[in-house]
Order: sequence, then C-alpha cells, then structure tokens
Amino acid sequence: MERAQLIASIRQKRSFLCVGLDPDIRKIPPHLLETEDPIFEFNKAIIDATVDICVAYKPNLAFYEVMGSKGWESLQKTAAYIPPGVFTIADAKRGDIGNTADMYASTFFETMHFDAVTIAPYMGEDSILPFLKFKSKWVAVLALTSNSGSKDFQQLDLATGKKLFEEIVEKSMRWGSQDQLMFVVGATHGEEISRIREIAPDHFFLIPGVGTQGGNLSEVSARAMNKDIGILVNASRSIIYASSGLDFADRAREEALRMREEMSKLMDR
Amino acid sequence: MERAQLIASIRQKRSFLCVGLDPDIRKIPPHLLETEDPIFEFNKAIIDATVDICVAYKPNLAFYEVMGSKGWESLQKTAAYIPPGVFTIADAKRGDIGNTADMYASTFFETMHFDAVTIAPYMGEDSILPFLKFKSKWVAVLALTSNSGSKDFQQLDLATGKKLFEEIVEKSMRWGSQDQLMFVVGATHGEEISRIREIAPDHFFLIPGVGTQGGNLSEVSARAMNKDIGILVNASRSIIYASSGLDFADRAREEALRMREEMSKLMDR
Repeated sequence: MERAQLIASIRQKRSFLCVGLDPDIRKIPPHLLETEDPIFEFNKAIIDATVDICVAYKPNLAFYEVMGSKGWESLQKTAAYIPPGVFTIADAKRGDIGNTADMYASTFFETMHFDAVTIAPYMGEDSILPFLKFKSKWVAVLALTSNSGSKDFQQLDLATGKKLFEEIVEKSMRWGSQDQLMFVVGATHGEEISRIREIAPDHFFLIPGVGTQGGNLSEVSARAMNKDIGILVNASRSIIYASSGLDFADRAREEALRMREEMSKLMDR
Repeated sequence: MERAQLIASIRQKRSFLCVGLDPDIRKIPPHLLETEDPIFEFNKAIIDATVDICVAYKPNLAFYEVMGSKGWESLQKTAAYIPPGVFTIADAKRGDIGNTADMYASTFFETMHFDAVTIAPYMGEDSILPFLKFKSKWVAVLALTSNSGSKDFQQLDLATGKKLFEEIVEKSMRWGSQDQLMFVVGATHGEEISRIREIAPDHFFLIPGVGTQGGNLSEVSARAMNKDIGILVNASRSIIYASSGLDFADRAREEALRMREEMSKLMDR
C-alpha cells in the first residue's frame, strides 16, 4: 500500500488503530475449539467485527509458529482474509542478511501479500535493504520498544553523544524514505517519542504498548502525531480478549469503537 | 543437550563442524523435485551423508518459511529426523518479549526439540530470559555477525569506550552461564574474535562465515578455540551445494570430510 493511501484511510475512518491479531489457543473462547481451524475462526470473527474501525492488522508470528505448520496455515488464511485497502503488518521482527533476507521478503510480501514487516536492525543495512526492493511495501524498523529490556541496549549512550536508538533511526532514514520505512516506537516511553519525532518528522510510527502495557493514548498521540497523523497505534489483548465468551467479537468491536472515538478526538486536537 | 555432552561429541568425532541446512528449492538437485517433499528429501540425504562427521545441524528458518506451511512441515520433519546426540540449532534470529518469547521458546524447544535457537539481542534481557528457563536448552546470541552491515550498529563505540558488541556479550553473560548461552561470532572478523574470547573465555561460539563468505578456518580457530574447543564452525553452501547432480550427497560428504580433517588437525595444534 502506498503512503498516500494509508493516510487517506486514516482520515476517512477517523482512526489510526492497528489491531494486533495475537490469538492464543489457551485464551480464545472455548466454543471455537470445536471448529477445524480455531485460530482462523477467531481471527475471522475479530476482523469482521473491527474492519470498518481500524486501518491495520498486525499478526504477531510467534502465536502462529507455536502451532507448527497448522499455525502457519492459519496465518496464511488470515492474511488472505483481510480485505484490500486495510494495511497489514507481519510482526515477525526478522533480521537477517543477503539471500536470507531476500527469502523473508519474498515470504511476507509475495507469498502472503503483507504490506509491511517488522525488522530488528541489529545486523545493519544488509538486513533492511532487501525488503525495500519491493515497491509499495514497508519495513517497520524496531527503534525503541515498549519493554523494560529496551534500556539494556537501545538506550545506551554512544561515544557521539547520541543514544543507540537515535543512531538507528538516523541511519535507517538513509536507506529508505518515509514512503517505505516506519519505526516501531513503544508507547511506554515519553520524551524519547518526541525525540524520535524530531529526528524523523515525516515517517510513520507503529506504536505498541498502549493499554495492557501502560502507555497512554493521549500522551503518545500528542508526542508522535505529525501533519499526516503519521502514527498507527496497536492494541492487541485489550481488544481481542475483551471477552472470552460467546460475545467476544461484539465486545472486541465495542473496545475498538471506544478507541476509535478517542482517536477521532485526538485527530482534531 | 548439556555442555559436557557437546564437548564430548566434539572430541569423539574430532570435529566442530555444524552443517547449515539451508535448502533452496531453486538450487537443490532437479531429480528431487519429483518427490513429495523435495526439501525434506534433500535434507535427509545430506544428514545421512554427514551425520558421523559433524556435531551439529543448523537449519536457517527463512529457507523453510518461504515455502509457507509446507516448508514448516519440511522443517519439523527435518528436526525429527536428526538423531539424538547431534546438536540442533534453529537459526531463527528471533527477538521478542514476554509472552511472545515464551511462545517462540515453546515452538523451538518443545514442539520441535531443537537444542538451541539464535536470538537477536536488540530488545534486551526480556527477549533472552524466557529461553533460558528450559533446562539443557541454549540461546545463541548474535554478538558480531559476518555481514558487512555489522559495522552499522554492532561495532559502534559506546560512551563507556566499549563497542556495542562487547557490551552485548558482557551483559548477556549476566543472564545465562556457559551451560546455556553461546555467541554468534562471524568468521570474517579477526581481532574482534580474539576480543570476544577474552571477554567470554568459557562460552561456546557459533561461527558462520567460513568458506563462501571469506572467513579462514585456521585463523578463526586460533583466535576462538578454548580449552574445551569451545567453537562450532558452520558451513552451509560449500557443503550442501558441493554438487547439484545425482552425486550431491557424496560430494557433500567429501567436503564435510575435508573440513573435519582440517578441524582434527587444528584440535591438536
């Protein structure tokens, strides 16, 4: 999907919500376990209930891979079920080089038609460039993640005076433009979000960590929004597990609507 | 597998060879394409031809994932086919946190019974600890990779005077002992290999980049070997694609034998 189309979708839906499709077989409503593919049935119901409210879906691959080849099938069916015009992000956090990165790019962009894939930057330029060869496809580079371990390496001070995550954002911007590159920036950080927005005024941020993890939607929006809105805020558990009963899809919709309402107000601020 | 068993296997086989199982459907011998599962048939033949010569196998997951759920099946069959007593490494370069890392650990250690998984350290402690909860299972942390992009971030100077990869090795050593933690150290580096060995005298190094990528077996062994040998040197393409004809398995065996012979001499040095 092209950048202009993503921005138009956000403005039209008045939402920058990304729904994280992280289906845990131990948590999905029991009545689905009798179906042939419970993971896909769960996702399908969540997608049907939220597709007019959110602008993106982000399956986290771990939740599929744990099911083996069956989980991989559920992922492929899920990716195929999401209608065109909705941005799709494979949250794979891949990072490898040369022919291996080519393989991953082919898997996510050609076999499964995702719009974007999350990439761990530790291995450098050759772990990112292979993905940028695909027109209208995106790389979401991990810049500053929402977990406590982000302090271990991401926030280290470099000899230049910069933080490592700042260097990663600056260097990545030389490899890809705002048309293909976005940054993963955890909602649990405050001033650092503003700092990354200073460095990258025009790039989209993919922001996890609102809700269960403690990030505040109003604060991160104030810090991270740009003239094109420029953010996708992800919510997973708070939406998909809003209820564990027969009404799980209705309750997921309610929670997504609640977030969309808040987002709509923030877009006018 | 426990550390003592891995060391014993190296001494007994007089080999520290790890064979990279990176089967590319475009490169495997054409006669295999007529079988039901060409990727598995290829791996099976390579394993049969090398299992008495090498001490470890390392499938790179990208090569399987690119085939979708079918590839994932080939991987599971391959993992199940490798006999007990041979060390197995899922080269997944995963890096995620909390419940997601738990999922990955379960996938690789419980569903597929790998001994080790490669991990990208960028997300910090909480991306590594979940894997260390599994007894006799290993994490291979990317320290300094063999690609040119390793200069982009891994070799940055920190404010403390250390390089980033040194900090990663030092900090990781606080999270896991030499019984469960090894480091990925590319053979294309010279003095840096010696430096990492200084920091981590007792940890195993998993060393890619010998052969096709230009690393020299004799030099890296001199720099990286410790009193327990302490290294696994990976070779992929030079072995598995030694021939693209009907004799591919025989030629793979010849190349593995050639490397083992060199390794055996280096072990006596």
